[in-house]
Amino acid sequence: MGMPKTPALTTDCVIFDNTGRVLLIRRKNGPFKDSYALPGGFVDIGETLEAACRREVHEEVGIELGDLSLVGVYSDPKRDPRGHTVSVAYLALLSLVVPPRAGSDAEGAELIKDWRKLSLAFDHAMIIGDAERLAARQLAR
Amino acid sequence: MGMPKTPALTTDCVIFDNTGRVLLIRRKNGPFKDSYALPGGFVDIGETLEAACRREVHEEVGIELGDLSLVGVYSDPKRDPRGHTVSVAYLALLSLVVPPRAGSDAEGAELIKDWRKLSLAFDHAMIIGDAERLAARQLAR
Repeated sequence: MGMPKTPALTTDCVIFDNTGRVLLIRRKNGPFKDSYALPGGFVDIGETLEAACRREVHEEVGIELGDLSLVGVYSDPKRDPRGHTVSVAYLALLSLVVPPRAGSDAEGAELIKDWRKLSLAFDHAMIIGDAERLAARQLAR
Repeated sequence: MGMPKTPALTTDCVIFDNTGRVLLIRRKNGPFKDSYALPGGFVDIGETLEAACRREVHEEVGIELGDLSLVGVYSDPKRDPRGHTVSVAYLALLSLVVPPRAGSDAEGAELIKDWRKLSLAFDHAMIIGDAERLAARQLAR
């Protein structure tokens, strides 16, 4: 039995450092070329979502992540101008500040405090807001 | 730009009634033909995950769901013998007991208390366990 065609699956990662800054890249390619965005990308067949998230973050900003927490699943059919992509977003907290370096698909990588003032790619502003609430709940425990 | 090939996307729904029973179907088709399973299925291009979950539950057991909560994302490449499928699982709580009726892809639909004694399809036992913990946290609030 063949598999039906379903939306393309991606993952994005919200990485906060211990001062509340979020790690953003500048997109090298379209859509949203040059916009700030979360590190992330398409999931390969044969890898888990968490492995895809770690791989994309390592490729794009050179960081090896520790624990990941599920933030949410973002599936609005209009969220990506290329077609219907669904993103599974994770949260990672950096205990020490690692200077990020831009890798594949990223023009630059920066830890940014005032992300609400930026124009972010896709629905990444919504994802970061959701991740901030999750991080606050985790830190309150 | 074409979309890369990614794992197939599915959704499953854990529906508890107010006595803690979970709504399970008997699978009409393979894989896991005749096993108990959560209602669910493949996500269509153009629909959100939540809409796909509601549609599958309506098709399979004839119930219109209220609020959905995200339980988790299940992406082990070996979880489905057909190939790599990723399931986004939701929790729904029934406030009144609606007798389920079996619809498409389901031989039967039952509210079952002792689901741990059954042999369930895919990783659905793990999903129900995770959903039980989420429901307990929600009810404790």
